[in-house]
Amino acid sequence: MNYRLVANILGKVFVLEAALMIPSVIVSLIYGEGDLSSFLITMAILVALGGLFLLIKPKKKKLLARDGMMIVSLAWVSLALFGGLPFFIHGAIPSYIDCIFESVSGFTTTGSSILTDVEVMPKGLLFWRSFTHWFGGMGVLVFFLALLPSMSGSTLHILRAESPGPTPGKLVPKIRDTSKILYGIYFVLTVICTLCLIFAGMPVYDSIVHALGTAGTGGFGIKNNSMAYYNSPLIYNILSVFMIIFGVNFTIYFYAIKRNFTDIKKNTELKLFLVIVIGAVAIITFNTRSMFESYWESFYQAFFQVSSLISTTGYTTYDYNMWPLLSKMILIAVMFTGSCAGSTAGGLKQIRIAIMLKAIRRMVKKLIHPRSVIPIKADGKNVDEDQVSSIGLFCFAYFLIFGIAIILVSFDNHDFETTFTAVLTAISNVGPAFGEAGPLGNFAFFSDFSKIVLSLCMLIGRLEIFPVLLMLNVNSWKKA
Amino acid sequence: MNYRLVANILGKVFVLEAALMIPSVIVSLIYGEGDLSSFLITMAILVALGGLFLLIKPKKKKLLARDGMMIVSLAWVSLALFGGLPFFIHGAIPSYIDCIFESVSGFTTTGSSILTDVEVMPKGLLFWRSFTHWFGGMGVLVFFLALLPSMSGSTLHILRAESPGPTPGKLVPKIRDTSKILYGIYFVLTVICTLCLIFAGMPVYDSIVHALGTAGTGGFGIKNNSMAYYNSPLIYNILSVFMIIFGVNFTIYFYAIKRNFTDIKKNTELKLFLVIVIGAVAIITFNTRSMFESYWESFYQAFFQVSSLISTTGYTTYDYNMWPLLSKMILIAVMFTGSCAGSTAGGLKQIRIAIMLKAIRRMVKKLIHPRSVIPIKADGKNVDEDQVSSIGLFCFAYFLIFGIAIILVSFDNHDFETTFTAVLTAISNVGPAFGEAGPLGNFAFFSDFSKIVLSLCMLIGRLEIFPVLLMLNVNSWKKA
Repeated sequence: MNYRLVANILGKVFVLEAALMIPSVIVSLIYGEGDLSSFLITMAILVALGGLFLLIKPKKKKLLARDGMMIVSLAWVSLALFGGLPFFIHGAIPSYIDCIFESVSGFTTTGSSILTDVEVMPKGLLFWRSFTHWFGGMGVLVFFLALLPSMSGSTLHILRAESPGPTPGKLVPKIRDTSKILYGIYFVLTVICTLCLIFAGMPVYDSIVHALGTAGTGGFGIKNNSMAYYNSPLIYNILSVFMIIFGVNFTIYFYAIKRNFTDIKKNTELKLFLVIVIGAVAIITFNTRSMFESYWESFYQAFFQVSSLISTTGYTTYDYNMWPLLSKMILIAVMFTGSCAGSTAGGLKQIRIAIMLKAIRRMVKKLIHPRSVIPIKADGKNVDEDQVSSIGLFCFAYFLIFGIAIILVSFDNHDFETTFTAVLTAISNVGPAFGEAGPLGNFAFFSDFSKIVLSLCMLIGRLEIFPVLLMLNVNSWKKA
Repeated sequence: MNYRLVANILGKVFVLEAALMIPSVIVSLIYGEGDLSSFLITMAILVALGGLFLLIKPKKKKLLARDGMMIVSLAWVSLALFGGLPFFIHGAIPSYIDCIFESVSGFTTTGSSILTDVEVMPKGLLFWRSFTHWFGGMGVLVFFLALLPSMSGSTLHILRAESPGPTPGKLVPKIRDTSKILYGIYFVLTVICTLCLIFAGMPVYDSIVHALGTAGTGGFGIKNNSMAYYNSPLIYNILSVFMIIFGVNFTIYFYAIKRNFTDIKKNTELKLFLVIVIGAVAIITFNTRSMFESYWESFYQAFFQVSSLISTTGYTTYDYNMWPLLSKMILIAVMFTGSCAGSTAGGLKQIRIAIMLKAIRRMVKKLIHPRSVIPIKADGKNVDEDQVSSIGLFCFAYFLIFGIAIILVSFDNHDFETTFTAVLTAISNVGPAFGEAGPLGNFAFFSDFSKIVLSLCMLIGRLEIFPVLLMLNVNSWKKA
């Protein structure tokens, strides 16, 4: 590892995190609920520490691939550790482990919370929670790349390590411009979402905070019963549509701006995503019909829950623990798949599922015609065989880490359903689980050990496994 | 598909199944519990039908790969359909769907049962249930290959399709000889197991039946509380050791006979298998200590349950539903892994896990040194990259089918734990599940639809997915 270069960039990340707190400071000033100083102290610490790190000047400025990945992992761990400080300094969350859990859950756009009563929190802190969703969703370092053009070497590796999906790439030749376009689309969509919510009758503060949580597919709420508080089908439907929008690969919107509709129509992932959403909503609508007053009600409740869980947002309007097992299992299934690569969502990603499905179909075809050579196609282009192999390995690693985490969280001796879905919701960055940690519950009752395991799962899910494994490997820490 | 050739071989399989019932007929004659005629009628049907099919003479005698696989799938479906007839004709199991479930569970060495009271069954029928474990474990068509040397073409594909593991191969150049050696080792080990059980004080009939179930890693019991009936640590430990023995790749025993200890020591899969067994037993021994009178008791109970579930046998001595969640989750984890390839056990198989673990480690190494070329080694030899890719795909397909089956069984609306583990126990060919279908329960309460889904899962697990997918594909049925 190029220690000096990594330290220098981490210094910049610290200063950036301090800057990211400015909007929360403004909110604190407006509402004056006593959380201002907690931000100012944290910012002072970050700027001081950042300044110290910035004094370390790199001898070699070229960024190698592994250093890029290490920067992403270390930056995310740092963001989470310091992002939890305002809660701790304010005293709203007395345990620092809980603060870290809440902060990791924010940046990774998970949205699981250890808060038993979210409504007593000051508005500044609540805004900060949701603001971490927004930056965490698109990527803090991606934002960084848009700001700072001065790095040489593989900055593409930073983009790759932080953007979800098997093949994140550049929209335009320059990485800096790609980052700007992504953040531009992201900002505009978030504003539209906010306006729609205000139009539907949600208070302005609530609309902004929820739009941030929707855009990042995070899901931190500001009411104890999440969206059920608003009790408005219009608000539910607006959010359902936007959660799906933020689950789509942002490349699609870039194509739309360029009026390149051919590539949108050819998009393999988008098709599979929409088919799964429609299928899941249809089955749950019929399966839960008897629990609601009309098909319309069971439809919009199904649409909201499916959109929320497949986009890994995690807002809720209903205690789906009460639903029949079939509906619950479909919700669990979409928590596994997640949405599209290159969106702000978590999970395995639809493109990986699509390519694996095609690989299975090819395997069967090859048994019938052993000598045939059949390429796997996605978006009308052949997929590289190495990539097919990596995707299989990625899925295995996902399930393996999932299994190990379940065993670790089992030390707490809660029930099977709660444990299984709590780990799933963490690794897929969804938010709520089932059972005790369901829509009406929270994560406060887990042991500190389990909270650390779940926080690690959130990071592993958000950074898609390998950057975190790299960070945990001793050899990565050797001097270059 | 070469219809004539497939039909001709299926004819032989029918006659073979009739012949396989001869030992059960002898048991029926000895005990005279009224089940003789049910066997004789089934045998008559099989011989008549087999004779008809044998009249169809193949025009092209060369066996193609896909036809080999189709034969295996169709033979297994036929074996299961007719293997359930004796229960139906006798009336011991009134529903034919239940008969098929019991028969599929037998041949696939699963051992899940729909019987609510197994002790009232006649001894001949009970013997037949366990005898299907024995033949199903090593493979009915593998036995066939030992008998009939006359086929030309890819009979290796039959061996491959029926033997568990990613690379089943020949021990000796001739397939016929390989089959004979495998069945020879199998027979001798089964006899030793029987003698040990008799020596430990188990009645002779019980010893033979349980040895058949142990050798095939099946697990059908003849007492309502499975092995707890015998309440003897000596019997428990004998069975634990033999369940592990039958979970080991039979190639190891072939090496042992040849005094080739170098290859045994180098065996990657054997090492991982033993490490997992020892680790799982150790953790459960400590975790369940407070539930037993001594460490010795918690050890032998843990050893038995781990051996039984990792070898996918499914005998039980204790209602592990009562154990702490950690112990339960470890048992569920070993139900996923299963034992070694080339044994009679089910599950993903240790060699696949080992190769995937090595592939993950390589992926991390490659992130540190991007230009390095690192082969994956198993048993001291390089593993082909295509195979690494296929194993990843296999694991994905396993989890996918697992997920789809869970959704289908969810229509029954039982609880999460019961549904999840019932499907797992079916696809991994284990036997008992958790919750309502646990050691003290059975599978009678599932709907007919779920029983069919679970039966299909058992077949998919036993034949390792692709032969069954091939059979379910329309294109496979086209005339060659």
